[in-house]
Amino acid sequence: MFRAVASRGVSRNLAMTQPVSRRFPTPAIASLPVDIRTRILAVQEKSGFVPNVFLTLAWRPEEFRAFFAYHDALMDKEGGLTKAEREMIVVATSSANQCHYCVIAHGAILRIRAKNPQIADQVAINYRKADITPRQRAMLDFAMKVSAEAHRISEQDFAEIAGHGFSDDDIWDIAAISAFFALSNRMANVTDMRPNDEFYMMGRLPK
Amino acid sequence: MFRAVASRGVSRNLAMTQPVSRRFPTPAIASLPVDIRTRILAVQEKSGFVPNVFLTLAWRPEEFRAFFAYHDALMDKEGGLTKAEREMIVVATSSANQCHYCVIAHGAILRIRAKNPQIADQVAINYRKADITPRQRAMLDFAMKVSAEAHRISEQDFAEIAGHGFSDDDIWDIAAISAFFALSNRMANVTDMRPNDEFYMMGRLPK
Amino acid sequence: MFRAVASRGVSRNLAMTQPVSRRFPTPAIASLPVDIRTRILAVQEKSGFVPNVFLTLAWRPEEFRAFFAYHDALMDKEGGLTKAEREMIVVATSSANQCHYCVIAHGAILRIRAKNPQIADQVAINYRKADITPRQRAMLDFAMKVSAEAHRISEQDFAEIAGHGFSDDDIWDIAAISAFFALSNRMANVTDMRPNDEFYMMGRLPK
Amino acid sequence: MFRAVASRGVSRNLAMTQPVSRRFPTPAIASLPVDIRTRILAVQEKSGFVPNVFLTLAWRPEEFRAFFAYHDALMDKEGGLTKAEREMIVVATSSANQCHYCVIAHGAILRIRAKNPQIADQVAINYRKADITPRQRAMLDFAMKVSAEAHRISEQDFAEIAGHGFSDDDIWDIAAISAFFALSNRMANVTDMRPNDEFYMMGRLPK
Amino acid sequence: MFRAVASRGVSRNLAMTQPVSRRFPTPAIASLPVDIRTRILAVQEKSGFVPNVFLTLAWRPEEFRAFFAYHDALMDKEGGLTKAEREMIVVATSSANQCHYCVIAHGAILRIRAKNPQIADQVAINYRKADITPRQRAMLDFAMKVSAEAHRISEQDFAEIAGHGFSDDDIWDIAAISAFFALSNRMANVTDMRPNDEFYMMGRLPK
Amino acid sequence: MFRAVASRGVSRNLAMTQPVSRRFPTPAIASLPVDIRTRILAVQEKSGFVPNVFLTLAWRPEEFRAFFAYHDALMDKEGGLTKAEREMIVVATSSANQCHYCVIAHGAILRIRAKNPQIADQVAINYRKADITPRQRAMLDFAMKVSAEAHRISEQDFAEIAGHGFSDDDIWDIAAISAFFALSNRMANVTDMRPNDEFYMMGRLPK
Repeated sequence: MFRAVASRGVSRNLAMTQPVSRRFPTPAIASLPVDIRTRILAVQEKSGFVPNVFLTLAWRPEEFRAFFAYHDALMDKEGGLTKAEREMIVVATSSANQCHYCVIAHGAILRIRAKNPQIADQVAINYRKADITPRQRAMLDFAMKVSAEAHRISEQDFAEIAGHGFSDDDIWDIAAISAFFALSNRMANVTDMRPNDEFYMMGRLPK
Repeated sequence: MFRAVASRGVSRNLAMTQPVSRRFPTPAIASLPVDIRTRILAVQEKSGFVPNVFLTLAWRPEEFRAFFAYHDALMDKEGGLTKAEREMIVVATSSANQCHYCVIAHGAILRIRAKNPQIADQVAINYRKADITPRQRAMLDFAMKVSAEAHRISEQDFAEIAGHGFSDDDIWDIAAISAFFALSNRMANVTDMRPNDEFYMMGRLPK
Repeated sequence: MFRAVASRGVSRNLAMTQPVSRRFPTPAIASLPVDIRTRILAVQEKSGFVPNVFLTLAWRPEEFRAFFAYHDALMDKEGGLTKAEREMIVVATSSANQCHYCVIAHGAILRIRAKNPQIADQVAINYRKADITPRQRAMLDFAMKVSAEAHRISEQDFAEIAGHGFSDDDIWDIAAISAFFALSNRMANVTDMRPNDEFYMMGRLPK
Repeated sequence: MFRAVASRGVSRNLAMTQPVSRRFPTPAIASLPVDIRTRILAVQEKSGFVPNVFLTLAWRPEEFRAFFAYHDALMDKEGGLTKAEREMIVVATSSANQCHYCVIAHGAILRIRAKNPQIADQVAINYRKADITPRQRAMLDFAMKVSAEAHRISEQDFAEIAGHGFSDDDIWDIAAISAFFALSNRMANVTDMRPNDEFYMMGRLPK
Repeated sequence: MFRAVASRGVSRNLAMTQPVSRRFPTPAIASLPVDIRTRILAVQEKSGFVPNVFLTLAWRPEEFRAFFAYHDALMDKEGGLTKAEREMIVVATSSANQCHYCVIAHGAILRIRAKNPQIADQVAINYRKADITPRQRAMLDFAMKVSAEAHRISEQDFAEIAGHGFSDDDIWDIAAISAFFALSNRMANVTDMRPNDEFYMMGRLPK
Repeated sequence: MFRAVASRGVSRNLAMTQPVSRRFPTPAIASLPVDIRTRILAVQEKSGFVPNVFLTLAWRPEEFRAFFAYHDALMDKEGGLTKAEREMIVVATSSANQCHYCVIAHGAILRIRAKNPQIADQVAINYRKADITPRQRAMLDFAMKVSAEAHRISEQDFAEIAGHGFSDDDIWDIAAISAFFALSNRMANVTDMRPNDEFYMMGRLPK
């Protein structure tokens, strides 16, 4: 019963004038393997819509599974970084990579997780001027270097970030989130993945 | 029985003077979840040694699983690209990212898959001068643009590569391999992952 | 009578915890020459707040007058470019220059002028993927080249943009807006000029 | 009477084989608003020729007025920087922007103001090797960073330049001159504005 | 007899307050091998002064000999390029490399060989705007690509330059001059070689 | 007698399917001036083959002589740098310049001189991660800066490298080798000079 409703919701979404991806075909929900369909419907149930990244990547079920397993391992993890801080890394590096989908979608999540309607725009435009703590600034400096020139990461970079109280575990997280979205940004840019309209306003108004 | 022998092999490997990663701890094989240990031992059985990427990433079992699932989905796939061509993409983009581990390790695999002892060095140094076909050159041009500036990939880039006979499926593969190693290169550079000594000579001599 | 009220409004604004500029002193409204004070109060009357660019630049009355005279000559002009298109140029080039103030403030104006709540974020992140016409895309290609490497603008660039129907007058406007915000972005970045809170939500909700 | 003579001089200038701008029309002096015509004739009276920037920008009277008001506010100002130092900023940043007109014209002014026939060429080619004081070197380091990457100007940059004895007022001047010529260089490059022949030799010979 | 006089001239030159190189010792003329001393005195006899490149490089006699043999083979050669055109290549590429010595010294030679007092400044600042022929523009486009990114020189670049009538011999000359000054610029920059005062005015006044 | 044999060897070499240079004609050995022919035959006698750089550059005998005189003065010199260290500079800078010939050929020489089969690949891919001493790392940092941005070499760079015990003579050597291969890399890239097959395996196996 629920699935039927949900599927209709998805279909409606797919019937929009704006495509999910402008460059690759989007599979029909009904055609997807059950685990992927279940995940998509669960997201829809929770969010009220299906973020286009799910529909675009579903064209390749195996890659879809690996992508979201990796994503969840990094972004839903407990640890020294808050969930808002993890999203800051995503927004800052995705903006440097000019990734339309990732900045809009993760900007929304950042606003919600940080309970701050301005933070995503600030981090996206120039994180050096954002209203963040010096520790968060050091975190983003490291993440941005991993994103742009990981081959130059040196002992000095490790010493600096450790000096802000980040553990080895935290540093791995910062690097891995930056690295994972290096992948994600490229896929979104190549597929010309369109951010859902819903993301633009999420977290901008007080609840 | 086999496991005990294999484990000893791994331990010996770990006891080398050269570390696996210079920046993060390498877990003991015995401490790893069974699926990861099994995968590592299988690789050792096949290759005669454990490539350091397995030991470095095993520090994070969930990420390990997602990483290799993603890797296998892209690199062991049948399709319009040969396995050697997939490795060419890895070597060219990893060299642009100055990734020590990936160029050495995948250079070895490329030599073997292409049955060509010179191809990896050529592709790594300047793929524009390598002994490859015009179609492979177009494939690498696209892959390199995804790697370096995916935000500029345009309809014209799609038209050019399609003009060389690559299907939508092939183009996704090219982009996804480039994107996946954008992640991989960054992790290898941040962890200062060391290529195993065995890779340097693999595929350089006729069998 | 009105001025007294307005001044109080300004003072309240200035008393916020967030500074107008983090690097240079902000003059008291009462201390400003009458023409500048009048302009500031007029803006406040119209907008409901004083955009921080007015307060920051008022430290230098002569430069203030020249700056806004230049701005108005380019942005309030009738001509072949709509006002929304002029703001697109500002948002695209200011984002490339990572100018916090200009992207937030002119993003707001762009949303209002284009009556489109998504356009500013799209143009800021990657104008190549924004929902704009091919003519607007050509306009932004030219503007971005003026912003980033005007020394390479060639006859071919002129031919291409003229091919989209832009007149000499329009091309001058595109170039001059891009050039003016090259100045403006640098001043905003050096002064660490803070965008007013009001800009973030302007034009995001239907009236 | 004087005006008639001056106008003739200007016409002769316009009749040269070399155009003032290769891309936009140059207005006839007689057609210009009286304030602009007066300014142009005054410059001619003083210099013996009309610098092409006046003729090129006169196509747009409002922008002309704002441009020169801004220019004069920054360049003719008294303050912590000498007039020669202000011109050094122009020459260094205009050379980095490969602005033909600005390097030649302001190189001439720099030679005259510094009473030094070599300084302009030195500052244009590589200011790090010019015969200038450490304080001037710090001034140009700051100006060049504003010109090339103002979004990275940090507290450390402010501390360094303040350490050379520059006041807040001086730092604003340095930044504003660099920012103003970011605009000016772009306009000169887009219009392909030609430096007058007279500039090349000015200040090269002892008076 | 002549030598004694000449030597005195050189000594006077060396006694100037400005050093020849700010970073390496300058050998005494008398201490140099006879062939090098002879060459230096011949240059002095012809030019009236000893260009500092001779004194700086004389610290290493073998390299001195190879350097000037290479230089002469390329610059004094007859062929499809005029001597002025050869100097244009030097000035354009040396300016891109911000080489103080080479731009000033070869700018002087270019003015003399082209009998044009403006050409060197134009080519140094932005050769795309210089008063040169389309063929010379194509020559400099090729030379600049060799200088900045020779690894991207492609068949298309060869086709374009050949289309302007350059022979294989000419193309080699263009490339080799650009390559030789890649060496020369780096040596001059590292040694902080100072251009002689005489160069600044050479070729600027009609004879 | 010997010459005939040698010449035949060279001819066989020239008759290979792979050209020596893909862009310029390769002269016949017999047609070369005797000194050049003698040098080439001596190299062949010693190495067992004629490295293609000799055949490519022999098209221009005067440049050939200057090139190898310069090369020998820098690379065969005794001094503070070992011969292996000199080759490290060549490999690191040639890799940054994406020079196919130089990385392959000098990589071989580096392996032999350092008696280390891995060092060349390590230095080529990312010298910051190579198994070298801190002193060698400082040497390569300096060499790479000379190669990429010699105009920014500063007193601080000199102080740092001198702090590792390099003398003025050594620093000149480092700079001059980097500068010489700036020339060499450009010539090899423009001529599309092909590395001989023999280089790929040299020094990879224990003798």
